[in-house]
Amino acid sequence: MFTINENFLRLNENYLFTTVAEKIKQFSSEHPDANIIRLGIGDVTLPLPPAVIKALHKAVDEMAVKETFRGYGPERGYDFLLEKIAENDYRAHGIDISTDEIFVSDGAKSDTGNIVDILGENNMVGITDPVYPVYLDSNIMRIKERSITNSKIVFLPCHPENNFLPEIPKKRVDVIYLCYPNNPTGTVMKRDELKRWVIYALENKSLILFDAAYEAYVTEDDVPHSIFEIEGAKSCAIEFRSYSKNAGFTGLRCSYTVVPKELKTKASNGTYVSLNQLWLRRQSTKFNGTAYIIQRAAEAVYSPEGKEEVKGLVNYYLENAKTIREGLQEKGWTVYGGVNSPYIWLKCPDTNDSWQFFDRLLNERHIVGTPGVGFGPSGEGYFRLTAFNSHEKTREAIERIKKWEI
Amino acid sequence: MFTINENFLRLNENYLFTTVAEKIKQFSSEHPDANIIRLGIGDVTLPLPPAVIKALHKAVDEMAVKETFRGYGPERGYDFLLEKIAENDYRAHGIDISTDEIFVSDGAKSDTGNIVDILGENNMVGITDPVYPVYLDSNIMRIKERSITNSKIVFLPCHPENNFLPEIPKKRVDVIYLCYPNNPTGTVMKRDELKRWVIYALENKSLILFDAAYEAYVTEDDVPHSIFEIEGAKSCAIEFRSYSKNAGFTGLRCSYTVVPKELKTKASNGTYVSLNQLWLRRQSTKFNGTAYIIQRAAEAVYSPEGKEEVKGLVNYYLENAKTIREGLQEKGWTVYGGVNSPYIWLKCPDTNDSWQFFDRLLNERHIVGTPGVGFGPSGEGYFRLTAFNSHEKTREAIERIKKWEI
Repeated sequence: MFTINENFLRLNENYLFTTVAEKIKQFSSEHPDANIIRLGIGDVTLPLPPAVIKALHKAVDEMAVKETFRGYGPERGYDFLLEKIAENDYRAHGIDISTDEIFVSDGAKSDTGNIVDILGENNMVGITDPVYPVYLDSNIMRIKERSITNSKIVFLPCHPENNFLPEIPKKRVDVIYLCYPNNPTGTVMKRDELKRWVIYALENKSLILFDAAYEAYVTEDDVPHSIFEIEGAKSCAIEFRSYSKNAGFTGLRCSYTVVPKELKTKASNGTYVSLNQLWLRRQSTKFNGTAYIIQRAAEAVYSPEGKEEVKGLVNYYLENAKTIREGLQEKGWTVYGGVNSPYIWLKCPDTNDSWQFFDRLLNERHIVGTPGVGFGPSGEGYFRLTAFNSHEKTREAIERIKKWEI
Repeated sequence: MFTINENFLRLNENYLFTTVAEKIKQFSSEHPDANIIRLGIGDVTLPLPPAVIKALHKAVDEMAVKETFRGYGPERGYDFLLEKIAENDYRAHGIDISTDEIFVSDGAKSDTGNIVDILGENNMVGITDPVYPVYLDSNIMRIKERSITNSKIVFLPCHPENNFLPEIPKKRVDVIYLCYPNNPTGTVMKRDELKRWVIYALENKSLILFDAAYEAYVTEDDVPHSIFEIEGAKSCAIEFRSYSKNAGFTGLRCSYTVVPKELKTKASNGTYVSLNQLWLRRQSTKFNGTAYIIQRAAEAVYSPEGKEEVKGLVNYYLENAKTIREGLQEKGWTVYGGVNSPYIWLKCPDTNDSWQFFDRLLNERHIVGTPGVGFGPSGEGYFRLTAFNSHEKTREAIERIKKWEI
């Protein structure tokens, strides 16, 4: 009889957002007239910027004509996009990244999930708690069965006492996932803090997997947009970027990953292996590129109009973040994030049970958020609200909360 | 020091088509005036059908307006597409497949490559030889290091003596990859033959991974379009389908995979596990769906105009296949495939060295094909030509070959 990867049996069957969706469905069927405001899932709501729409139409027209039709694309992505990325996201900020260090793909979820394919199974993996579930689940799926005691995963708790910044672990970690601005807490890692981690990684020959999906929301000067702003990071880090939360590509699917050529590690045969080569081999075997029309859409994000329009989208959501943050502070609640992030992380005011707070907020205020414990045990007693709804709905949600006798 | 997945070090560094591309580049630089005809890579050349272009423009316009904008899509794909697939590709042919057995993705390469994620590492894996390299490479990447003696992979040679149909192996296989119409040989497995494999899989509790990416090219009645035409296959098979070679989506990226709910296997704790649930968990963790606009494009393939236009594309390429097959037969060469397939597999007329024939064909006739040995040792002495060029260039290539004194 053929066998399955039994690591899957150790995963939770209910994905966080599936449970949330089921609870909303149940509530809606019992209260069909309730005007529910959704501040739960991290999905954008504003339409694609006009520059992107224009680029899409143009590229679609090219696909209609034999002379300009494009089939399979280059393995790393089209040069027109790679060059825009290298220039605008890196060189313009004084970071030297070349086009053959960039890999365009269909989403940061795919890349952060698939990166385990190229890593050894015996690495000690550091994961912050709370955390975006993909890092943890993709490791559980991959780690050898005999070591699933979780002894290969070190959780790094993040809480108000450490400003939601993981402490350097006593037990050595080989691979560390860092996501800043952070999902779910909305907090940031300032340049000096990130530098400590880069130094740690260089000293310990560890690998940092840096998820910068929310970098567009950075508003403060001492918060890095890229880990490669830190000296030495090119020898110890991979960076994931996305067009989902800046240009609204959640339904269009485009992202990229930077694997610097300096990033190498020693194989058991004593040779040094380039992770750039490994990722190229992984991607060229198990992925066939992002659609041409969508790479043209991503290119348009870097046009003068595209840049302005994306700034408009980000500012729109940042204003919501401010509305939530300041509104809840006025209410006297303890809140974090929301300054360099579309996420607000709050201490549940009446309970240490995130799901209980979820139920009360839904039942009594008809507002949907995400229970902190869904992101890990250190999230218990906390709650995530997102800034992706409209100004109107966001303000109304805050008014409802302000009038809430809790 | 962090470690890598050292299985990657056992892969060939040069992917077949990379080597081919380098040889063409070299030849072109030495012979800038040569009019090279490419019958090598399996990429389509005709533009997207008008029905698809229309659907893309419409969907792009929806993404430009807040009311119709779509962010993250449903995990398995949008219902509008799932329903079209279930109805047109299955129910219309008497096969009962429901929408929750279908998973839309960004390409059959991704799905056939990633499917190993949900399978056990100790399975004995049967792979035909010659073969599409993804099946083999994705298994080498995944198999436990200590078993990389290849003892976990059983090669099933395909050659004229067995009509390019793998023989049922003496050594039991747990997982078998079958691709029919076949890439690279262009040959087919008739209904009775496929039935033998389904019976084998049911008796041995094995899993068949059936790659039906080329089903649109089937012209003969006794050749199945889907493995699910065979009774019992829903308990032992996963099927991969693609819009690349029928509707020309190689640069648009859309495919789907069918994992029937009946397909279960026993875990070591004695419970039966549904592969549909495992694949859902894999995809919802490490993939975030195919772009909305591209799912709308795929939907258009099933419209009355879309169906007609796709038929036109397939017939165009099939005419090329006929031109190549009949032309080479007139020349007295031994050829296979090309009847239910865009691929023609030929015995190298002058040598048993496929790369030597590649070099001669390029240097003396300025024609590019693919050396059979690139698909596995049993491909040595054979050569693949593809039907994806224009009528004019295909005819010219055959004329050049006919006049060739070899």
